[in-house]
Amino acid sequence: MQQQSSALAFGGTQSVWTHASTSTGTDMTFAVFTPPGEGPFPVLWYLSGLTCSHQNVMDKGEYRRAAAELGLMIVCPDTSPRGEGVRAHEDDWQLGCGAGFYVDATEPGYEHFQMHAYLTAELPALVAEHFPADMARQGVFGHSMGGHGALTLALKHPQQFKSCSAFAPIVQPSTADWSRKALAAYLGDNPEAWRAYDATLLIADGHRIEQLLVDQGEADSFLNDGLRPWLLESACADADIDLTLRMQPGYDHSYFFISTFMDDHLRWHAERLTA
Amino acid sequence: MQQQSSALAFGGTQSVWTHASTSTGTDMTFAVFTPPGEGPFPVLWYLSGLTCSHQNVMDKGEYRRAAAELGLMIVCPDTSPRGEGVRAHEDDWQLGCGAGFYVDATEPGYEHFQMHAYLTAELPALVAEHFPADMARQGVFGHSMGGHGALTLALKHPQQFKSCSAFAPIVQPSTADWSRKALAAYLGDNPEAWRAYDATLLIADGHRIEQLLVDQGEADSFLNDGLRPWLLESACADADIDLTLRMQPGYDHSYFFISTFMDDHLRWHAERLTA
Repeated sequence: MQQQSSALAFGGTQSVWTHASTSTGTDMTFAVFTPPGEGPFPVLWYLSGLTCSHQNVMDKGEYRRAAAELGLMIVCPDTSPRGEGVRAHEDDWQLGCGAGFYVDATEPGYEHFQMHAYLTAELPALVAEHFPADMARQGVFGHSMGGHGALTLALKHPQQFKSCSAFAPIVQPSTADWSRKALAAYLGDNPEAWRAYDATLLIADGHRIEQLLVDQGEADSFLNDGLRPWLLESACADADIDLTLRMQPGYDHSYFFISTFMDDHLRWHAERLTA
Repeated sequence: MQQQSSALAFGGTQSVWTHASTSTGTDMTFAVFTPPGEGPFPVLWYLSGLTCSHQNVMDKGEYRRAAAELGLMIVCPDTSPRGEGVRAHEDDWQLGCGAGFYVDATEPGYEHFQMHAYLTAELPALVAEHFPADMARQGVFGHSMGGHGALTLALKHPQQFKSCSAFAPIVQPSTADWSRKALAAYLGDNPEAWRAYDATLLIADGHRIEQLLVDQGEADSFLNDGLRPWLLESACADADIDLTLRMQPGYDHSYFFISTFMDDHLRWHAERLTA
């Protein structure tokens, strides 16, 4: 594991690391904020949206002040494998590099796209080994495609991720225009295979988490086509999942929206991970 | 004046604007954060460092939460003219585009570099016309080259800028390696012409401000060559200027440093501008 950078921030340390991943068969880069103090600290995973790397939230997420106060470690992985041999789809921001959709691909040509395995096994083990992390207290949150990632990871692995929240998540990727193509490319044409990576269908199939916080901007241009939080609201109501869905008037899909409500999410996770 | 973007953030509005500047003879872009409420609001100018545009602090400065709470308008100009006809010096990050040093150039070839006039007259008039700004309550702060800009603008125009602070400022550009070349290019070879844009020499020449807050990282790689805050400390002591110089152990020159202490600076300005 190679350190790319490290800087003191809000009394903690913001660092960036690269390692050779066995899950993806590529080098992978991730960012870690370690709060001040000795630890071990609860670990909160932030999963980013389409086109992002580990860096967008590190630059624009404004999570360090509250994370330092609350004693949370924040880990920000990349959104897909990258580099030589990885199908990039440079003309399509919804497929390939920057668009891993947090699945384990089964289709030929997409062997490197094993983000689900990477995030549930390989990277947690690496974090446990190299940082003052309390792996018994992990939470997950994310934005847009990363909100989808957070919801599906928590629903599939509730013993690993004990708290979950999302900013403007894609709640039903199997029917949303901007995700169906990627699911078909990574998992094949049969929509039955997509159910394992669709939050609303995981809930319909019996997966459960206790509580969920979702913020959604009402001025988000993707609200009605790609995001549709009412589908999650309906699924949670049917399954008795305690969803707090906050529609935020005037807010769009950007990091201006995310950073505004970042503190609320960090406090929400801290209450559940440090109790 | 054309709006490039606008987004709700922390209950206020972060917007970006472009206009044809008569001072520089180019299009100029700047960012404005307007806090929630009716105003008029005190106006705090943030001047950025070498290589930056209006965007770096907008992305990484983390000023919106506190500015919204405190009711401060934050204006973030570019650091130089850009575009057709402007000497860019693409191989030199300390001269030309991104390195305006907040002076009014007098040398042939640098006619567009009129950042001092732009920031003291043209842009304030534009802000006064288009935003709910109380121009009787202006403060100025900045980072590195922009810290130099903040100090020199406040010293030269204490009636305009009623509060001043800086992150890791270049306090004596006339003797620092990374600024002497630019001053010579913009103002000519005679160092006497540089005194009007050198904070320590402006103080020696009788210019005064009452109070000053400066944060400086001790792990800043430019500390001993370019920044040398002890020169400011000495000048302020000689002139009875109330300088609060805070040396911050472990902090570097980056926005991780700036964002950590941003809240302190905003509160410091708010106390002086909203009293």
